[in-house]
Amino acid sequence: MNDFQHRSAEINDLLCILNLLAWDARTQMPAGGSPTRAQQTATLSGLAQRQLLDPAYERAAEAALSTAEPGSVAARAAEQALGAVRALRRVPEDLTRDLALTKSAAQDAWVEARARGDFGHFAPHLTRMVDLTRRLADALGHREHPYDALLGLYEPGLTTRTLGELFSQLRPHHLSLLRDVQARPQPRLDFLARDYGVAEQEVLALELAQATGYDLARGRLDASAHPFEISFTREDVRITTRYRPDFLPGALFGVLHEAGHAMYEQGVSPELTRSVLTSDLLGLYAVGGASYGTHESQSRLWENRVGRSRAFWDRHFPRAQALFPSQLADVTAEEFWRAVNRVQPSLIRVEADELTYDLHIMLRVDLETALIAGDLTVPELPEAWNARMEADLGLKVPDDARGVLQDIHWSAGLFGSFPTYTVGNVMAAQFFEAAQAALPDLGASLARGEYGPLRTWLTEQIYRHGRTYTPHELLERTTGRGLDPAPYLAYLSGKYRDLYGLTAKETA
Amino acid sequence: MNDFQHRSAEINDLLCILNLLAWDARTQMPAGGSPTRAQQTATLSGLAQRQLLDPAYERAAEAALSTAEPGSVAARAAEQALGAVRALRRVPEDLTRDLALTKSAAQDAWVEARARGDFGHFAPHLTRMVDLTRRLADALGHREHPYDALLGLYEPGLTTRTLGELFSQLRPHHLSLLRDVQARPQPRLDFLARDYGVAEQEVLALELAQATGYDLARGRLDASAHPFEISFTREDVRITTRYRPDFLPGALFGVLHEAGHAMYEQGVSPELTRSVLTSDLLGLYAVGGASYGTHESQSRLWENRVGRSRAFWDRHFPRAQALFPSQLADVTAEEFWRAVNRVQPSLIRVEADELTYDLHIMLRVDLETALIAGDLTVPELPEAWNARMEADLGLKVPDDARGVLQDIHWSAGLFGSFPTYTVGNVMAAQFFEAAQAALPDLGASLARGEYGPLRTWLTEQIYRHGRTYTPHELLERTTGRGLDPAPYLAYLSGKYRDLYGLTAKETA
Repeated sequence: MNDFQHRSAEINDLLCILNLLAWDARTQMPAGGSPTRAQQTATLSGLAQRQLLDPAYERAAEAALSTAEPGSVAARAAEQALGAVRALRRVPEDLTRDLALTKSAAQDAWVEARARGDFGHFAPHLTRMVDLTRRLADALGHREHPYDALLGLYEPGLTTRTLGELFSQLRPHHLSLLRDVQARPQPRLDFLARDYGVAEQEVLALELAQATGYDLARGRLDASAHPFEISFTREDVRITTRYRPDFLPGALFGVLHEAGHAMYEQGVSPELTRSVLTSDLLGLYAVGGASYGTHESQSRLWENRVGRSRAFWDRHFPRAQALFPSQLADVTAEEFWRAVNRVQPSLIRVEADELTYDLHIMLRVDLETALIAGDLTVPELPEAWNARMEADLGLKVPDDARGVLQDIHWSAGLFGSFPTYTVGNVMAAQFFEAAQAALPDLGASLARGEYGPLRTWLTEQIYRHGRTYTPHELLERTTGRGLDPAPYLAYLSGKYRDLYGLTAKETA
Repeated sequence: MNDFQHRSAEINDLLCILNLLAWDARTQMPAGGSPTRAQQTATLSGLAQRQLLDPAYERAAEAALSTAEPGSVAARAAEQALGAVRALRRVPEDLTRDLALTKSAAQDAWVEARARGDFGHFAPHLTRMVDLTRRLADALGHREHPYDALLGLYEPGLTTRTLGELFSQLRPHHLSLLRDVQARPQPRLDFLARDYGVAEQEVLALELAQATGYDLARGRLDASAHPFEISFTREDVRITTRYRPDFLPGALFGVLHEAGHAMYEQGVSPELTRSVLTSDLLGLYAVGGASYGTHESQSRLWENRVGRSRAFWDRHFPRAQALFPSQLADVTAEEFWRAVNRVQPSLIRVEADELTYDLHIMLRVDLETALIAGDLTVPELPEAWNARMEADLGLKVPDDARGVLQDIHWSAGLFGSFPTYTVGNVMAAQFFEAAQAALPDLGASLARGEYGPLRTWLTEQIYRHGRTYTPHELLERTTGRGLDPAPYLAYLSGKYRDLYGLTAKETA
């Protein structure tokens, strides 16, 4: 190890430990531990930041870059470190401090405001947060749009312009498809809400996650209020879910989703362990995936493309029936597949189906882009939200708790992260199309319950590279194109044609 | 906070995080995480050590000491920090490194040697470890005996001389009492080994631990291969146990024991949180208890003095019967109490009863003292062990796995820690006698299942002070005397008189 690699390894160790502190706080920690845990986390992230901004680290990265072969993995690592260090140095210390303080106060206010359904209680904090975030965008630097700087924190290379072009194709397609689907007879849903034992739910979800390839020798499943995946190197990648005894699909598809994230992390090349290429240095977060969107492409691919397919349930429904004999006695595999793919507009993003989910995302992205651009003010936000909900999903928002206050993101200053959900969906379809082209037998192997060929191909093309390539480069290398919604639109049209008996014309 | 307090708080944060890494590795981590976790732990302990040995920390401690009122808590903290920093500076870096490397190799060799019952495989590693430990003792400094320096790592102020005097009273007393007990009829034991469900064992153990005062809002119970207690500030103090479906007392008294440790940590004054006085700086370990022996005095007090008392089972046996109706149907509270206090010499320390446990400890301490003094060589160790086992416990050691190879301590270089178990027993009896004197109603309140008065008294006298006072000072303040075996010997004699119907003369 040279000095740069050694310093990078120590920084990655600290980021992995920060991840462990977060995992423990969300899954194991007794309530009383919260305040001192916050101090421990602050101390450790302060130390990690000090190591990152140590001038000796920048010098070590420069030295490593000067001796590395241009374009090599070693050069990539040094370039990424230098990029992160220089970006962080552009952010004034008082802005970082103000953002942390405002985030802390804004989150408290948001919790309170949501409980009372009172946007006015949150509005001044959000106004301050938007103001500071605009300053952050200016400090980080941007050419066309301040929102570009924020996108770069989550999806390197993605621009507001590209996003606008993407949405201009997605939104009319989704709205039209939704209208068509809503005009057709709806599937049976009654059996989804029967009494499902949590222990059996866990058995089923874990068996399916392991079948797709999640390695429990390097992972584990716990319960938490909000499901997540987190890693402390590729050798320890944990997932969580939330169980509802009266609703089977929640934990089931939640686990398949998080296992998709986890397989990405478990598939990173061991050679990248403890390196910059498994570190999000700007976010002070240990992660092996190339970006938030790339990560989401894999959770969605395994959850939706594999886990909600007809073939998946033709294969695995008998096992579900064996675990829930009375609850699923009067249900067929086909009915189950139709039920878990139902389209049903809802007020709440995290409860949305595969089709309406993107409409929730586009609503948020358009609003936050306008906030950052200064085209929309915080007091105008609830009305804009409610109008768009009615226009796109046909739903009247009864109160702000089920409207503009439902997500934690804005209170946490996470402007720029929402797009990655929809970008992930688009990328998932592109990657899957490429896998189909590369593996002529793919459909048959999935029907046989053999997920190894798909996983191996994804590992080879995407997972093993960690953060070596940008999302755009991964797409180019794998599909020969950049971000392209065509495969995603074709997939959705075909899927709902099969499910709802639409004619090809209706979905063209 | 002054600069010293601020730096001490950050060091304590890092020690708490190291404790969390250890807890997670022993209770939650998937097997695959082991190698990268070891690197993360090494990086973090290296950072903690760097902060501790930063000359700026020593200067800050000196500045704090110069302005603190002599004898004040603030002065104590500064003195302890300076003592630790200067002791660590006396240990050459190459010795620290050699110890770490030897420990790692010796532990691997010990695991292998124990599995094969082959002491010869472990002997060269132990020889090296003894040699390095003697160099460590010399580096730390000692006056009368090199073992004194090692004792100081676990029990500040304790000397080999004091220990020798203590043992000269304990050993003949224990051996005589054991002979008397063995000559009497033995209690019923058959029901202890029935089939006890693990879930019900956990319910019972947790209920009893909570009854004595373990606060689950600031704690939790998990399973692990070896039971332990660990804290990340007083606000998060966790315990573990090991369940055997065919032996009830293991987990039950294990949990009461660890809960005793935990109540000590939970009872430390909040003002000492994140300070030197909840940090073992020499051991790089976050802990609020004054010493290993003081800690053990509390686990033993709650496990044995409270948990194995007749009054405790008169009160709680009906609940045990309710949870295990078939297993305990033909058992009385008195029979249960007699069974969990049975005396039965065994080859294995961790399975020993309250009386023979000290004999196991004295054996180990006498042997390790001789090793450190150079009066015994490693090749002579197994024979010395076996001879002493036969002399004291009347047992022939069938193989080294059940003899000299049974404990992890020597392979880990923990010379000097064994005495703290017996010192803890002695201190427990002294503290309990003082509590009885201070609380005339103590026996009656314990019989009513009211553990608050005892816990409050112990908190006031011991727990809240953290590491402000040495064990000797705590004893002096609380009992008016230093270490004194008389209360312990009187307690044991009285106890076994009641249990085994010995006459007062026999136990005098």
